[in-house]
Amino acid sequence: MMRKQKPVKDSFVIMTELVLPNDTNTLNNLMGGRMMHLMDIAAAIAAQKHSNRIVVTASVDNVSFREGIRLGSVVTLQAQVTRAFASSMEVHIDVWAEDIPSGTRIKSNEAFFTFVAVDQSGRPIDVPEALPETPEEIALYDGALRRRQLRLVLGGRMKPEEATELKALFAME
Amino acid sequence: MMRKQKPVKDSFVIMTELVLPNDTNTLNNLMGGRMMHLMDIAAAIAAQKHSNRIVVTASVDNVSFREGIRLGSVVTLQAQVTRAFASSMEVHIDVWAEDIPSGTRIKSNEAFFTFVAVDQSGRPIDVPEALPETPEEIALYDGALRRRQLRLVLGGRMKPEEATELKALFAME
Amino acid sequence: MMRKQKPVKDSFVIMTELVLPNDTNTLNNLMGGRMMHLMDIAAAIAAQKHSNRIVVTASVDNVSFREGIRLGSVVTLQAQVTRAFASSMEVHIDVWAEDIPSGTRIKSNEAFFTFVAVDQSGRPIDVPEALPETPEEIALYDGALRRRQLRLVLGGRMKPEEATELKALFAME
Amino acid sequence: MMRKQKPVKDSFVIMTELVLPNDTNTLNNLMGGRMMHLMDIAAAIAAQKHSNRIVVTASVDNVSFREGIRLGSVVTLQAQVTRAFASSMEVHIDVWAEDIPSGTRIKSNEAFFTFVAVDQSGRPIDVPEALPETPEEIALYDGALRRRQLRLVLGGRMKPEEATELKALFAME
Amino acid sequence: MMRKQKPVKDSFVIMTELVLPNDTNTLNNLMGGRMMHLMDIAAAIAAQKHSNRIVVTASVDNVSFREGIRLGSVVTLQAQVTRAFASSMEVHIDVWAEDIPSGTRIKSNEAFFTFVAVDQSGRPIDVPEALPETPEEIALYDGALRRRQLRLVLGGRMKPEEATELKALFAME
Amino acid sequence: MMRKQKPVKDSFVIMTELVLPNDTNTLNNLMGGRMMHLMDIAAAIAAQKHSNRIVVTASVDNVSFREGIRLGSVVTLQAQVTRAFASSMEVHIDVWAEDIPSGTRIKSNEAFFTFVAVDQSGRPIDVPEALPETPEEIALYDGALRRRQLRLVLGGRMKPEEATELKALFAME
Repeated sequence: MMRKQKPVKDSFVIMTELVLPNDTNTLNNLMGGRMMHLMDIAAAIAAQKHSNRIVVTASVDNVSFREGIRLGSVVTLQAQVTRAFASSMEVHIDVWAEDIPSGTRIKSNEAFFTFVAVDQSGRPIDVPEALPETPEEIALYDGALRRRQLRLVLGGRMKPEEATELKALFAME
Repeated sequence: MMRKQKPVKDSFVIMTELVLPNDTNTLNNLMGGRMMHLMDIAAAIAAQKHSNRIVVTASVDNVSFREGIRLGSVVTLQAQVTRAFASSMEVHIDVWAEDIPSGTRIKSNEAFFTFVAVDQSGRPIDVPEALPETPEEIALYDGALRRRQLRLVLGGRMKPEEATELKALFAME
Repeated sequence: MMRKQKPVKDSFVIMTELVLPNDTNTLNNLMGGRMMHLMDIAAAIAAQKHSNRIVVTASVDNVSFREGIRLGSVVTLQAQVTRAFASSMEVHIDVWAEDIPSGTRIKSNEAFFTFVAVDQSGRPIDVPEALPETPEEIALYDGALRRRQLRLVLGGRMKPEEATELKALFAME
Repeated sequence: MMRKQKPVKDSFVIMTELVLPNDTNTLNNLMGGRMMHLMDIAAAIAAQKHSNRIVVTASVDNVSFREGIRLGSVVTLQAQVTRAFASSMEVHIDVWAEDIPSGTRIKSNEAFFTFVAVDQSGRPIDVPEALPETPEEIALYDGALRRRQLRLVLGGRMKPEEATELKALFAME
Repeated sequence: MMRKQKPVKDSFVIMTELVLPNDTNTLNNLMGGRMMHLMDIAAAIAAQKHSNRIVVTASVDNVSFREGIRLGSVVTLQAQVTRAFASSMEVHIDVWAEDIPSGTRIKSNEAFFTFVAVDQSGRPIDVPEALPETPEEIALYDGALRRRQLRLVLGGRMKPEEATELKALFAME
Repeated sequence: MMRKQKPVKDSFVIMTELVLPNDTNTLNNLMGGRMMHLMDIAAAIAAQKHSNRIVVTASVDNVSFREGIRLGSVVTLQAQVTRAFASSMEVHIDVWAEDIPSGTRIKSNEAFFTFVAVDQSGRPIDVPEALPETPEEIALYDGALRRRQLRLVLGGRMKPEEATELKALFAME
C-alpha cells in the first residue's frame, strides 16, 4: 500500500518571541538553553503539523550560537519538515534576531531537530512522506540522509565505515 | 607567561530537578527542549566555576533522546569541564532519570556543550587550562580535539580535509 | 515637514504557541487571561516593528472568546498595525487554534489593541504614518477612526454626541 | 421554579501582586498583557465564588491603561460580580498600583469581564441571580444591560438599531 | 527623638491565588514550597506597606501543613505586621483554601515571617513602631517577644537560659 | 514483622540553581520565598528517594536568612533524610551560595523540613527506618526527637510540660 504524501511546506511554522528578563544572563543576553527550548517548540509544532500526531524529540544536531541577543529583542523562528523516515521527521529551523531600536535583523542560528511521531500509548507510528517542491526544499531533503548517518555514527548506532554518505564528505579516494 | 591551571574536577556540578506539569507534553513526558534548557544551565555553571567568569553558550553537540521521562520523575544532571581552549571550554553532561515509585534509574542523555568566557562588556577572555586527572577525565580531554574539529567542520569554519582527527575516525585506506 | 510613511505590512507578525498545562483551567482549556497576554505580546511586537520604539499598551477593545482551546493545541496569532495617530498605533490581531490530532483549525478570536510609542524616559514620541495597500488593509484603516471614537467615549474622554463616526453606526436620522 | 439568589458581595475578591522582572518591559514597567492576565484570574475567582462552578472567559470589555506601573510596585485588584444572566456573569474589576518608597497609590484600571459557568463536560449551566445591595452595586447592576448590548453589537450578534439601551447613550432625536 | 508610630492595620494585605498545574505535585495538590513562596510575597508586601521600604526576609517560624489543597482551589492569604523592633518587623499570615465546587473553605495554615527593612544599598534602616489596636492585634503584639526569643535561641544567637519569656512557656517553677 | 531499613545516605540529593531575574527583589537579591521553594523541592526529592513514594510537606522548622544572595549566583542545596517516624521523615537541608566572579562561597541557610509519604489516594503510608552511619548523621538522628517535640508544641499538638526532650534544652533541674 502506498504511503500518504504531503508537501513539506504544509508543516511551515513561524514563531515570534520577545526576549524577557528571565530568559537572559547577567549580561542581559538570551541564554542558549532558552533558545534551544524555543527551537524545540517551534520544530515540534512543524512535526505535529506534518504528522497530525503527538511527537517526541529524538535528537538535536550541532547548534552554534554566534551573536548575543539582547533583552527586549524580537526572535523569529521558522521551522519546516525536510524529510520523513518511517515514524521520524527531520525539521530545519532558522532563527533571526531583531533589535527594535536600530531595526537591525541578523541570522542568529540554524539547526536540525529530529522527532518521532507516537500514538496515545507512546509507540512510534508511521507518518506521511514529505514532498519537497522548491530547489531549497529539495536541497534540504537530499542532505537529510547524510545528516542522518552522522547522527547514527555520533549516537554509536552506525559504524563510521558504513556511513557511505559521510565518507564522501571527508573526500577520500 | 604561564597560563593558570585548574583541575577539571573543580568545575563538577550536580543539578537535580523534579519534572513538573509545565515541562511535559500531552503524554506527560518531559519535553526535549526543557531538557536542553536544564543541560545548558548545568553546563554553564560548570564553565563558570572553572573560569570564574560570565559564560555564553557557543555550541551544543548532537544530543539524542532515548526514553521518555515521566511527570514527577527526578532528573539528575552532572556536568564537568573536559578541556579549555583559550577563552572556550567544552563541558560534558550526563543525565539520569529516576522514577520514584519503582526506584528505576536510567541513563537518559549525554552531551557536550561549549562555552566562551566573557568580560563585563561581553568580549572573550582567556580561562585557566583544564587539568584532567582520572583516566575517564583524560579520555574526555583527549577526545575534545576531535569533537572540536567536528564542530568547526559542521559550522562551516574548517574544511573537512583539514580535520585530521576526524579523518582518522572515518578510517580510510 | 512631512511625517515618514511606512506600509502597514512591514509590521506583520506571526506568533505560534503551544498550549501548556499552566495555561489551562481545570477543564484543560486555555484561560482567557493567558490568551490576552499572548495577544498583547504579538500586538506589541507589530507596533514595535512599525515604530522602531519601545511601546506601551494604551487600550484593548472588546474581545470575545467563542470556543474552548484544548491543552496541546497550536495557537497562531497574526498581528498588524492598521493605522497610526501621532504617537499611537492601532493593531489588529487574528487568532487561530489548531487541534493537532484532528487537524481542525478554527478562528478563535479577533481584537484591536492600541499602543503608544515612547522614548527612553517613557514620553510619547511620534511614529511614522501607516500606509494601507490591500483592500483589507484599507478597510481596517478606514474603520480605525470609528473604533478610536468608541474608545474615547468608553474611556470618558469624548462626549457621545461628539462621536460623529459612532453616531452613524447607530443609524439615526 | 424560583432561581436561587445570592448577594453580589459574596463574590468579592481582593488579589495583591508584586510586579516582578518578568512582568515588565525594557522600561521596567508592567506589561499590559500581564495586567490583563491578572485581571482575568481575579475576575474568574469572583465568578467562581458566585456560581460555585468552573467558569470560562466569554468576553472582555474595553480596557484603558493610563499610567506606567513600576517594577517592584504592589498591584491590588478588586473584583465583584455585578449581574448574572442565565449562565453568564458580568464582573467589575478595579485595579490600584502602589509605589512602595513614596507610598503613592493610584487607580490604574477598571474593567468588565464576562464569564460563563460550565459543567464538567464544558456545557453552560445556570447560575444564581446576583443581588445588588449598596447604591454602588445597584448602579453597576443597572448599567450591565447597556454594556451587554454594546458587547452584542460589537460582537456582531445584535443589530445596532435593536440596542435600545445603547441608543439612549448616543442621545438622538 | 520619638520614633514614628503607625497602626498595624495599615499593613493589612489580602492576596488571592488560583492553584495552577505547575503549583501541584503528582497527586494534584499544592506543593508546600509554592505555598511558602506565596506566604513570603504576601508577608513582604505587608512589611513594605508598614515601612515604605524594600524589605528582605530574615526568618520564617515553624509552618505546619495540614490538609492537601486541590488543583483549581482558591487560596486566600491575609498578612499583617504584628510588631516592629528597630529595623525588623514580624508579620502574621493566615491562609485559607476554598474548594469551588463544594464551596468548602478551610483554614489551611498560619505562620510568622520576619523581615528587615533596608535602604538602597541594602543596609538595615529603622521602621515606624507598630501600634496594635484590637484585642487580637494586641495579643499578637504581646506574643511577638516570646516568638523572637525562640527564633534567637533556635538560630543560636541567644542562650536558652536567657530566654525569660520562653522559660515561662515551659512552665518551670 | 520487622520494618525495612535503609541508610540515610541513600536519600542524599544535591541541587544546583542559578539565581534568575524573576527570583530576585528590586535590590537584585534572591527572595526568601523562592529560596524556601527550592528547599522544599530538594527536601521532597530526598524524602522520595528514602520512601519511593509520593511525599507531601508536613512542616518546616524555623529558617533564618543571613546574607543576601545576588542575581547570577549559584545556589547549591544538599538534602538528606535524618530520621523516619512511621509515615513521616525529617529532612536536613544545607544551602550554599557562590558568587562566581569572586569565587566566594558562603553557607547561606540550614533547615529541617518534615514530609509524610502517601499512597495514590493520599493516605499516609509507612516508610523504611532511616539508618544513620557517620557521626554527623547520628547527631542529626539523635536531635530529631527534640525537634519533633518542638514542632508538636509549636503546632499545639503537645503540651510543653510533656516535651521531655525540650525541657532539657531549657536546662531546668
